[in-house]
Amino acid sequence: MLQMPNDASNRVECRIALPSESDRLSVVLVAPRNPLNIGAAARAMSNFGFLRLRVVNPYEVAFRQARSAVGAEPLLLHALEYPNVEEAIADCSVVVGTTAVGERQLQQPCAPLDDAAEDIREHLQSARVALLFGSEKSGLAKETLSYCHRLVRIPTRAEHRSMNLGQAVAVTLYAIASAGRQPNNGETMRALDSTAAVAGEIARLHTVLMEVLTASGYVHLNTQAGVEEKVRALLLRLQTTSADTELLLGMLRQIQWKLTRS
Amino acid sequence: MLQMPNDASNRVECRIALPSESDRLSVVLVAPRNPLNIGAAARAMSNFGFLRLRVVNPYEVAFRQARSAVGAEPLLLHALEYPNVEEAIADCSVVVGTTAVGERQLQQPCAPLDDAAEDIREHLQSARVALLFGSEKSGLAKETLSYCHRLVRIPTRAEHRSMNLGQAVAVTLYAIASAGRQPNNGETMRALDSTAAVAGEIARLHTVLMEVLTASGYVHLNTQAGVEEKVRALLLRLQTTSADTELLLGMLRQIQWKLTRS
Repeated sequence: MLQMPNDASNRVECRIALPSESDRLSVVLVAPRNPLNIGAAARAMSNFGFLRLRVVNPYEVAFRQARSAVGAEPLLLHALEYPNVEEAIADCSVVVGTTAVGERQLQQPCAPLDDAAEDIREHLQSARVALLFGSEKSGLAKETLSYCHRLVRIPTRAEHRSMNLGQAVAVTLYAIASAGRQPNNGETMRALDSTAAVAGEIARLHTVLMEVLTASGYVHLNTQAGVEEKVRALLLRLQTTSADTELLLGMLRQIQWKLTRS
Repeated sequence: MLQMPNDASNRVECRIALPSESDRLSVVLVAPRNPLNIGAAARAMSNFGFLRLRVVNPYEVAFRQARSAVGAEPLLLHALEYPNVEEAIADCSVVVGTTAVGERQLQQPCAPLDDAAEDIREHLQSARVALLFGSEKSGLAKETLSYCHRLVRIPTRAEHRSMNLGQAVAVTLYAIASAGRQPNNGETMRALDSTAAVAGEIARLHTVLMEVLTASGYVHLNTQAGVEEKVRALLLRLQTTSADTELLLGMLRQIQWKLTRS
């Protein structure tokens, strides 16, 4: 059955509240043939929060199978079906085609994905964008490309350009979703630094470690002179946090207790 | 058949000339179950030019099917198989786990993919990096996570975090491949110097430290369960160099000798 591209009714059907930007993007699968790929594309859309799927002239059996598959994405049920590209993109002001081509002569500008993702993200602030993916076998036909304002190329290596459809959708949507994020200046990664052990804690660790090393005979074996500094330098290199310093102290005290008891 | 992780022979087997950076990344699939996912992961690797696949304890039938599938990626034939994570990462100095978790308490820093990708790219200039993906059903187990220096999260939406394995591999490798095109603002990670201990050295340190902690009664006091992972996470946070790992091992062995002699 052909659903008409009635945007108002679509909004009612699709109950998930959407941030307005993602809501302006429609993923358009042109002539997909494989139900697994259709399902995979839908899953990636759901992962990255783009829930509007349009399908142009799909292989009907495949589309039906994809919709009825166990664990199928709900957004597949709300997918709109069109007989041709022109109708599928009629309400969009920016049409972006994805292509694996390398050097082939193209009419439009073809940008690598990470550049294009920024642009698309910007367009989504005010405009409806259609993002077209071609069939598994041959990509977007030349005629379809002629509907596109711009083209996007995922920068795969020359020896193996062509991506799996579901993966191409995932990568493209990831790039769009993460474009325009404020660069995180390492807050997450270096979070530990704020809790770095203060010198007094390191000194305590040093004292106990030296006592343990002495009790175990290590210091004696390595000629006392120099060991103390070597150990201090080691502790500084380790850059332990307060919490880890406490953890190490706990271990050392237990070892010390055991060593001196015997 | 279990292939031994002999890097020299692997280089000979794999004839595709590789840029040295991509060559230092190993994608490690831990306990994959589905041949289509294994194949999809391999395809994405080929697309983005990362050709070193390691597989830990796969479902054998699936692995065989993936390898023999029509159109299977050549790199699947060169994939190395390991019985456990520890052996699969033994020659890598940076181990990165991928996770879909949101708020779950984690031992390691967990960065969104686009931040982490820059760091991974930088590490690849001098260090071997293992990039771990968990099984389709449950992701990376907690025990496996304890081998990771850091974790990466693909920023999917809260309502649908879990990604398809092949798509997760594609998105992660795209991010790494396209990272570094722009100047990296902010040294996000502590620059690991080229002499960072490889996982095999850390594993040895872990073994001896656990023995010492057991002999001293520390493990008993702290209820065995959890201590092992806690200690492993601690050692990863310390980011010791090869030389410091040796130094610590020397100390621990002397302590161990003293503890067990008495």
